[in-house]
Amino acid sequence: MKQVLPPGMNAGQMDKALSALTRVVGSEWVLATDLDRDTYLDHFAVDEAAHAAAAAVVPQNAEHVVEIIKVANAHKLPLWPISRGKNFGYGGAAPRLKGSVVLDLSRMKKIEFDAENGVARVEPGVGFYDLYDYIQQHKLPYWTSVPGNSWGSVIGNALDRGVGYTTYGEHTARLCGLEVVLPSGELVRTGMGAMKDSPTWNLYRYGFGPSWEQMFVQSNFGVVTKAGIWLMPAPESMIGLDLELENVDDLGWAVDLVAGIRRDGLLQQSPSIGSWLRGAAVLTTRKEWYDKPGALPDDVIAAIRKRFNIGWWSISLRLYGYEAVNEAAAGIIQAQFAKKSRQPMTVTRWKQGQPMNPAPGQAAFAGVPVTFPLANAAWHGGRGGHIGYSPVLPANGAAATEQFRRTYDRYRQFGMDYHGSFAMGERSIVNVNQVLFNKDDKDMMGRVNGFFRSLVQATTEKRYGEYRTHIDYMDLVASTYDFNNHALRRFHETIKDAVDPNGIISAGRYGIWPKHLRGTKA
Amino acid sequence: MKQVLPPGMNAGQMDKALSALTRVVGSEWVLATDLDRDTYLDHFAVDEAAHAAAAAVVPQNAEHVVEIIKVANAHKLPLWPISRGKNFGYGGAAPRLKGSVVLDLSRMKKIEFDAENGVARVEPGVGFYDLYDYIQQHKLPYWTSVPGNSWGSVIGNALDRGVGYTTYGEHTARLCGLEVVLPSGELVRTGMGAMKDSPTWNLYRYGFGPSWEQMFVQSNFGVVTKAGIWLMPAPESMIGLDLELENVDDLGWAVDLVAGIRRDGLLQQSPSIGSWLRGAAVLTTRKEWYDKPGALPDDVIAAIRKRFNIGWWSISLRLYGYEAVNEAAAGIIQAQFAKKSRQPMTVTRWKQGQPMNPAPGQAAFAGVPVTFPLANAAWHGGRGGHIGYSPVLPANGAAATEQFRRTYDRYRQFGMDYHGSFAMGERSIVNVNQVLFNKDDKDMMGRVNGFFRSLVQATTEKRYGEYRTHIDYMDLVASTYDFNNHALRRFHETIKDAVDPNGIISAGRYGIWPKHLRGTKA
Repeated sequence: MKQVLPPGMNAGQMDKALSALTRVVGSEWVLATDLDRDTYLDHFAVDEAAHAAAAAVVPQNAEHVVEIIKVANAHKLPLWPISRGKNFGYGGAAPRLKGSVVLDLSRMKKIEFDAENGVARVEPGVGFYDLYDYIQQHKLPYWTSVPGNSWGSVIGNALDRGVGYTTYGEHTARLCGLEVVLPSGELVRTGMGAMKDSPTWNLYRYGFGPSWEQMFVQSNFGVVTKAGIWLMPAPESMIGLDLELENVDDLGWAVDLVAGIRRDGLLQQSPSIGSWLRGAAVLTTRKEWYDKPGALPDDVIAAIRKRFNIGWWSISLRLYGYEAVNEAAAGIIQAQFAKKSRQPMTVTRWKQGQPMNPAPGQAAFAGVPVTFPLANAAWHGGRGGHIGYSPVLPANGAAATEQFRRTYDRYRQFGMDYHGSFAMGERSIVNVNQVLFNKDDKDMMGRVNGFFRSLVQATTEKRYGEYRTHIDYMDLVASTYDFNNHALRRFHETIKDAVDPNGIISAGRYGIWPKHLRGTKA
Repeated sequence: MKQVLPPGMNAGQMDKALSALTRVVGSEWVLATDLDRDTYLDHFAVDEAAHAAAAAVVPQNAEHVVEIIKVANAHKLPLWPISRGKNFGYGGAAPRLKGSVVLDLSRMKKIEFDAENGVARVEPGVGFYDLYDYIQQHKLPYWTSVPGNSWGSVIGNALDRGVGYTTYGEHTARLCGLEVVLPSGELVRTGMGAMKDSPTWNLYRYGFGPSWEQMFVQSNFGVVTKAGIWLMPAPESMIGLDLELENVDDLGWAVDLVAGIRRDGLLQQSPSIGSWLRGAAVLTTRKEWYDKPGALPDDVIAAIRKRFNIGWWSISLRLYGYEAVNEAAAGIIQAQFAKKSRQPMTVTRWKQGQPMNPAPGQAAFAGVPVTFPLANAAWHGGRGGHIGYSPVLPANGAAATEQFRRTYDRYRQFGMDYHGSFAMGERSIVNVNQVLFNKDDKDMMGRVNGFFRSLVQATTEKRYGEYRTHIDYMDLVASTYDFNNHALRRFHETIKDAVDPNGIISAGRYGIWPKHLRGTKA
């Protein structure tokens, strides 16, 4: 990618800014060649150039970040902080605003571990593999919680509200105590960390007075340079309860059942009820079964499901903790399912000291990092990719079924293969869709944008909103949050102007723009 | 109390402001007589006059609140919003800034209940009794979680990070979706409520982009007019495990044991390990046992404990949920305690359909509102009162024991009776102390301030901070949060200036002052 510049900045001004950054981190950590720029593109994007970075700067520590932010203020240089840049489906490493300089925090890899309390204090460059390896090396009695593709950053994932498989899977809720460089260059610590040398910084979440963790999540109000994250004590036992649901209509009762046991606390992890393609797309490719465009016919779907023994929907529940408690809970859950389905659940039991099931599909339930789910990007062949579409629904079967029908019709209308799942929270569902595509299929790529917009439109009519979206659609989705004529957006802008008057941090992230770019949607 | 005015306002200006408020709510809802002012004093305060309100204004709904805030901006009138004003031990209904007008939200008592999801959307005037009664009347299968003195507001308690007894006892964590009138007069809804008519406003916490619930907790950035609060599904079974610990030194192992089962999730409510006086002070009064000043001698303590069969420390654990799961967990917990104490735990079992134990000490564990703990204010005789001192500690026995020793010495040094408890969070302890006193005992009242300051000083040296404090000590405690030369305070001030430039909301709350009063600590 040739030189790219942000709005209002010419090449000479950019050169001066990059020189100033070089004085902070050294010339080897300011990356501004054509190849460097390619590295930070979103290779899953329909139009990669739309979000090209001007360069990247790679600090070693929080002091560097402070100095970089001073440079950015002095030069009005837009920065786009990333942790490890693996936010695939939502933009990867690429900035929302073309010509931003990526602030790549991946060199900051310090881990401090409080073994008594099971709390890791990590820097943004620490990946799930790093943390997992650290725990194994030090034989610590804790499990990580990992997302489906685990090569990303522990902090980065929590700051985008990514999720995992265990009872600690709501990662953003397990953050406790942040260190943040504000856009002013000031270093703050949240919660108890606001007291110097506090021994409870990463143990008690709120502190004295208002609490700010979630202000720095999915936002652009500061650069998180450290975070405490709580880890699950290694359980005595893990019990798995798996079921393949034969019929598409089984979704309704399954959602109602799981919603009930999530709400009453019997089940404490968030299972995801996934459509057959979630399972199939990592095991085979489309062209082995069908060579025409348009949505797959039902008989092909049936053949694929039969070959791999996959239900129309798959459910995997996991219980963690003491064996006697898990057995009691498993018995109650099995009895509840038995009232709805004659098919018995597949039960798997693991106890501390036993070898873990090595199947890749099982590892993530034990907090072992995995990357195999990304194999689904190869489904269509060619240079595969996907973008995420993830509205939030009430936790009941009727809402889930209706949402499925509504979106399924549109998938077929646009000739796309349905890949949806229903992640069951305590009182809500996140309906995660992965829109799979082949970037070398020009016809298909021409349909993606219209398809995505039609999905957003349909769910917005139902007054559902997305919890997260690709950088291409942040303005679109933010605009659906329209209570009191977009009062929350105005509030965000008030905060943005107060903490980042020069608008140097992550312009446009989650639809929040600095004053000088507001309205242009650069 | 005679007329009181805030800094920079004369009687004529106040009259004009009150007239304008009358035009909003009607003359009967602007309360400005001497008797009215008395009503809003903190009757537990050492010096009640220090925090006297000028008047109170009592809106009926959010539209009134919007109009009141417009008046306040026009007249630079400081407001002090309260929900029901029952924040005893921390200031009651009284404002931090003398001469503020109390914005009394107690008339706003609307309850909307989502029976499928167990979510109450309430206004600030809704008390725990109101919500409990509503649930009983409508035969809803949910339990409230109530604080020890339950006449306060559901919202008010959550916004001050009050706690209850059940697995839903961390009330602030069960907030989901706020409606807030900003100091600008603008109405915002947080989370999914930022979308008009959202069906998931009170079901999914975070929304799209940064999330703000905790910004409006323990702060002065807006007036919360509605909140979603999640309720615990009525459990099939409740099992109680109670133990009276004979020796003062039992605190250490008991804290370590409970910290372990809190961390590994076996126990999901936050039990409080309380000193003997917590139990005794609601059953008897000091003068029945001892008539001298100074701390109680050990033989008197022993006699009181013997009479009421109270341990030096008391622990009450509760399990909620399915009977088989509870029984399994209870067995494991009993086995863990049996390794440390020969004394068996007292086990109580309740099942759905059975009558509840009517003992007042048991009701709160079942989410039934209670007020008997406030009887402890009568311990010393006279006009009783107390203030709270509540630092946060790491969750381990050594830290708890050391903290107990440190504070116990000071209680004795100042001639006060020790009333402390250790509320066991997931990874921290809140060491709640109730400093009991008799306002008619001039000598005792003369010691309270010095005693309190010595407690704060001692814990600050250990780098522990309080989670909450009385309005008298908000500046003192806020000043202990000193990381990077009080960076978080500067951050709070940046936010305050942006959202409340006229400084009309809750000046000085949690140490956050508007610009025109900063430094004066009015």
